[in-house]
Amino acid sequence: MNITDIRAARERIRDSVYLSPCAYSETFSHLTGSRVWFKLENLQMTGSFKERGALNKILLLSKEERSRGVIAASAGNHAQGVAYHATQQGIRAQVCMPVTTPLIKISRTREYGAEVILTGDNYDETCAEAQRRCDAQSLTFIHPFDDEAVIAGQGTIGLELLEQCPDLDAAIIPIGGGGLIAGVACALKETNPRIRVIGVETARLASMKEALIEAHPVTLPAATTIGDGIAVRRAGDLTLPLVSRYVDDIVTVDEEEMANGILLLLEREKTVAEGAGAAPVAALLNRKTSLAGKRVAALISGGNIDVNFLSRIIERGLVKDGRLVRLQLRVPDHPGALAAVMAIVAAQKANVVSVAHDRSHYGASLNQAVLDITLETRGPEHIEEIIAALAKANYNADRVI
Amino acid sequence: MNITDIRAARERIRDSVYLSPCAYSETFSHLTGSRVWFKLENLQMTGSFKERGALNKILLLSKEERSRGVIAASAGNHAQGVAYHATQQGIRAQVCMPVTTPLIKISRTREYGAEVILTGDNYDETCAEAQRRCDAQSLTFIHPFDDEAVIAGQGTIGLELLEQCPDLDAAIIPIGGGGLIAGVACALKETNPRIRVIGVETARLASMKEALIEAHPVTLPAATTIGDGIAVRRAGDLTLPLVSRYVDDIVTVDEEEMANGILLLLEREKTVAEGAGAAPVAALLNRKTSLAGKRVAALISGGNIDVNFLSRIIERGLVKDGRLVRLQLRVPDHPGALAAVMAIVAAQKANVVSVAHDRSHYGASLNQAVLDITLETRGPEHIEEIIAALAKANYNADRVI
Repeated sequence: MNITDIRAARERIRDSVYLSPCAYSETFSHLTGSRVWFKLENLQMTGSFKERGALNKILLLSKEERSRGVIAASAGNHAQGVAYHATQQGIRAQVCMPVTTPLIKISRTREYGAEVILTGDNYDETCAEAQRRCDAQSLTFIHPFDDEAVIAGQGTIGLELLEQCPDLDAAIIPIGGGGLIAGVACALKETNPRIRVIGVETARLASMKEALIEAHPVTLPAATTIGDGIAVRRAGDLTLPLVSRYVDDIVTVDEEEMANGILLLLEREKTVAEGAGAAPVAALLNRKTSLAGKRVAALISGGNIDVNFLSRIIERGLVKDGRLVRLQLRVPDHPGALAAVMAIVAAQKANVVSVAHDRSHYGASLNQAVLDITLETRGPEHIEEIIAALAKANYNADRVI
Repeated sequence: MNITDIRAARERIRDSVYLSPCAYSETFSHLTGSRVWFKLENLQMTGSFKERGALNKILLLSKEERSRGVIAASAGNHAQGVAYHATQQGIRAQVCMPVTTPLIKISRTREYGAEVILTGDNYDETCAEAQRRCDAQSLTFIHPFDDEAVIAGQGTIGLELLEQCPDLDAAIIPIGGGGLIAGVACALKETNPRIRVIGVETARLASMKEALIEAHPVTLPAATTIGDGIAVRRAGDLTLPLVSRYVDDIVTVDEEEMANGILLLLEREKTVAEGAGAAPVAALLNRKTSLAGKRVAALISGGNIDVNFLSRIIERGLVKDGRLVRLQLRVPDHPGALAAVMAIVAAQKANVVSVAHDRSHYGASLNQAVLDITLETRGPEHIEEIIAALAKANYNADRVI
């Protein structure tokens, strides 16, 4: 796999893949101290860059291979990329997914036209079944990363970055199995070796970092992470040497850092990133690598995040920012006590989200009730004002963490 | 104000305003029956199109006007647009905001460099104070919509649409005071009169529709709406004749329709729209106008939505989609009863969000407890499966709406 393959891939997939925007972000430049461009691969049709590699692989199939069909094993973005582009090309696609896959991902993969086979309690079992079917039916297996055509397809992003963001100093890119960064880094470094390429892994599954240390892929124990799109237990045999050759540094981000990245992208950049997609932003925000003042392209690789989960990230973020707070205070257990507290809160213009009132726990004495009130506030200063107003009326309110 | 002004505005603001992407959406084309392009003005630096008009106005000031400074009255997108571009141009900006303005909007307007004056309990009072200061200090008042330079600035979006989306059949655009649609419609119609221009208002404040019926601006009673960016009580004196001349039709959308539009844009398009920004999508999704098969540009005018509110929209959407459900059932009031129910729910792989257990209300008999369990589910079929599994064990579960 070399830059010629990537250039050829670009011509091959050009008409069927979205040339995603790559715009300068003044807000994130300010927040990170670098000059930041965001390449929005979350805006691809199926919500991630995975389409590029899958489509390049599909377009390289022989007529006979096309007629037999393709198969993939994935619970996520790769499944949707394969399903969509195989179907668009009139090729039968089977996708094996673990039985625990959320319904929304199953139905979306079906909508894009694939036949979904629910099999296996974990990815390894699912993958084994896909391989079995692949052999039995003489299908083409589309690997999510360890395949030269797939790597070359992902690398097309690198060529776009060079055009969209001239004089780039660095690119910061998520790493799962390494297909994305291997392709992009090859495109960048072979064009301009002075561009730094930084990879970002989830701290819970830093399999590429481990593989580089050991000089061969190592299988890590399974772990769950917000960055499910980069939760890969073992680096690829093909991707590892490319990463070793082209990538300057690998950093890791933790769960809290990714969650905060997701929230900031949502609030300030008006864009929906999944955990893996927010990993490069998380690395920049937490200064994991020294890119001060540099022109940096951060690749937002995907946006397929469960909205349920997004809603939880928002709530946690609001608590952290002091825009949602729970106060606990003791009130006399008689009629009107709650009303008196609520009047104080109302005068401070805080919005009540929930109230819990308990007379028997949290060490309440016999004539007391313990009140938990959850409030929407304007921020930490507003919280201090509310607590002060309550104190003035002799209510001692504690913040519940 | 004519198309020459809009063309001049485009050259004037070109280097300082983001040429926002306008991409075809296969998903929304499928959902709406039209061929849909989204013009993403929510990706502007300050999160909305308002920058265009504000900047055009600012760049037309004389040297003397620049030295005296500008003032605006706004609690929203206009405030941020004026603050940012005045500051960038080295011009002093004052922004009057109602005292009830959320802290986040105040601090963002300050971040962009404006002096914020909190004054007035509602927009009219705030505006009066801004006018008073404007006169006293000989400032330039930047009106949010009823100003030719502002209208011409917003109209630049129309010129971009013509380039980005050739062979357009129609454009669908939010209406507040009418500045945005007046400019865009002028640019489109003067270039190609066959392009249909449809306006969308919030049903709670359809002041432009009312003004067209009465043939003059009418002041409507104040109302709150999700579409706060288009909550304008009275159409503009300058915008009304332009709308009357260039706009083919005005439709309205209700609160639920906008909320659903926001959620779908978030989930499927990975983009954050505010209520007003989602109004055109809401109109398309609910077939408010006959655009079947047509090539339609939907203008997502802004993305400045409080994330707190976004989180509530997500939760309501999940309930509607059957991905979050509350079930109420009666259980015998003895140890182990809750455990038995939870075991059934667990076997169905539903995630428990909350449990409430009550022995005295909801008509519970003496030996009964009433259980409210809130669950994350995979969808309506999954809910039916859970209810059936409970029924099999003689628990009669009702869905709580």
